[in-house]
Amino acid sequence: MTKTRPLILVTNDDGVTAPGIRALIQYMREIGDVVVVAPNQGMSGMGHAITINSTLRLYEKHKEEGLQEYSCSGTPVDCVKFGVKVVADRPFDLLVSGINHGSNSSINVIYSGTMSAAIEGAIEGIPALGFSLNSHDINADFSACKKYVQQLAKKVLEKGLPKGVCLNVNFPYLPKEEIKGIKVCRQANAYWDENFDERKDPFGNSYYWLSGQFVNMDGGESTDEEALKEGYVSVVPTKFDLTAHEFRKELEGWFTGA
Amino acid sequence: MTKTRPLILVTNDDGVTAPGIRALIQYMREIGDVVVVAPNQGMSGMGHAITINSTLRLYEKHKEEGLQEYSCSGTPVDCVKFGVKVVADRPFDLLVSGINHGSNSSINVIYSGTMSAAIEGAIEGIPALGFSLNSHDINADFSACKKYVQQLAKKVLEKGLPKGVCLNVNFPYLPKEEIKGIKVCRQANAYWDENFDERKDPFGNSYYWLSGQFVNMDGGESTDEEALKEGYVSVVPTKFDLTAHEFRKELEGWFTGA
Repeated sequence: MTKTRPLILVTNDDGVTAPGIRALIQYMREIGDVVVVAPNQGMSGMGHAITINSTLRLYEKHKEEGLQEYSCSGTPVDCVKFGVKVVADRPFDLLVSGINHGSNSSINVIYSGTMSAAIEGAIEGIPALGFSLNSHDINADFSACKKYVQQLAKKVLEKGLPKGVCLNVNFPYLPKEEIKGIKVCRQANAYWDENFDERKDPFGNSYYWLSGQFVNMDGGESTDEEALKEGYVSVVPTKFDLTAHEFRKELEGWFTGA
Repeated sequence: MTKTRPLILVTNDDGVTAPGIRALIQYMREIGDVVVVAPNQGMSGMGHAITINSTLRLYEKHKEEGLQEYSCSGTPVDCVKFGVKVVADRPFDLLVSGINHGSNSSINVIYSGTMSAAIEGAIEGIPALGFSLNSHDINADFSACKKYVQQLAKKVLEKGLPKGVCLNVNFPYLPKEEIKGIKVCRQANAYWDENFDERKDPFGNSYYWLSGQFVNMDGGESTDEEALKEGYVSVVPTKFDLTAHEFRKELEGWFTGA
């Protein structure tokens, strides 16, 4: 009897040709059979967007033993849904998203297409990890990530994850020998202080570019921001239950006898 | 000395002309000065998407005493950022989003542009509420919502909300006299079981429509789904810290001595 290799869904938000996903595909092929469904263009900042008011295309790009590659006209979350419902002929054992060009630590988790794909995996009951490197350079060197990506993927395959939880993994952009190891963290409390850069089009009308500065307001311990700064790989267990349970009791008090 | 009226930012994801936001604007004008920044087209399912790889437009639509209206080419979250950084000349006291045509209870919170706008308010430190009516009918009757929308907005103005928390408010689609009141709830554990409806374009190539059935796996108590079914207005305190704190300890055990 042949033992079936784990089936791994690989996606990202930088698009199927980005160096980060090409690296991730190679790392995953050493662990299991790989199905790639990734956006056919950059989808950074798409958050948990899905395509419901327009149509979607799915393109078969490549097929060989242990590897099927598709691209999709939709968002990262659309890609996950396509992988699960259209492409796969058996359930996925693992979903990995990334490796993102740029950190998805702290509040970035909520804007990130990379992490939304991992969260969608958790929603669909697939153990999932999102990987991001703290460099936006399209030519960034991902090689220092390999050891940790494979270690974490194997751990999750072996141990599973609690229902509704995925992992948000961020790498400092450092040479292999300077990375200090893995640190389990919480999401730092930070926000983006935006600028709208106003410009004039050739017809004299205003248009805007959204940009901003990252502001970390979190002075506390065990944050992902702190771990990255210290040279650790940050791992934040991440969930899709957004209920602020700790405020429910007090909120109930607003309406009793009111 | 004239007492300044509260300044209220109103947005949505169905676009600035949707009946749901037109109702919400009217309800808010009775409470404070209103600034509207809403998408110039439907943005359902956009989640927490932001526009970072293309440009944005902001259009002034209307101005009168106590009301300024803008539309924007971006997502609901872009609208909030525009409101805060470009339009307002003083800090907002309140952000309200909706009233959405369709429920944003349970897992819908994560796909919802309406709720992402409210969550963005919380990120920016503005007390925020998202309102949604459990009917997708574009001609739905929002009048039964008015009393509760105003009551909740006034409560939040009076009491504030904890840092990082907003409210996800969903209305059953019932006549006024059949609504039983407000119930504070948690997000039900549910998911969408998707269908990809495959069709052929005029050139013989496949395209897809994403659709699906809502599956509530949550048999527990105090969920928003249950409250809506029983005829209550569901109110779920909602936060943007996605850390699964309860799993951190165990996860640390994976790496100690490993």
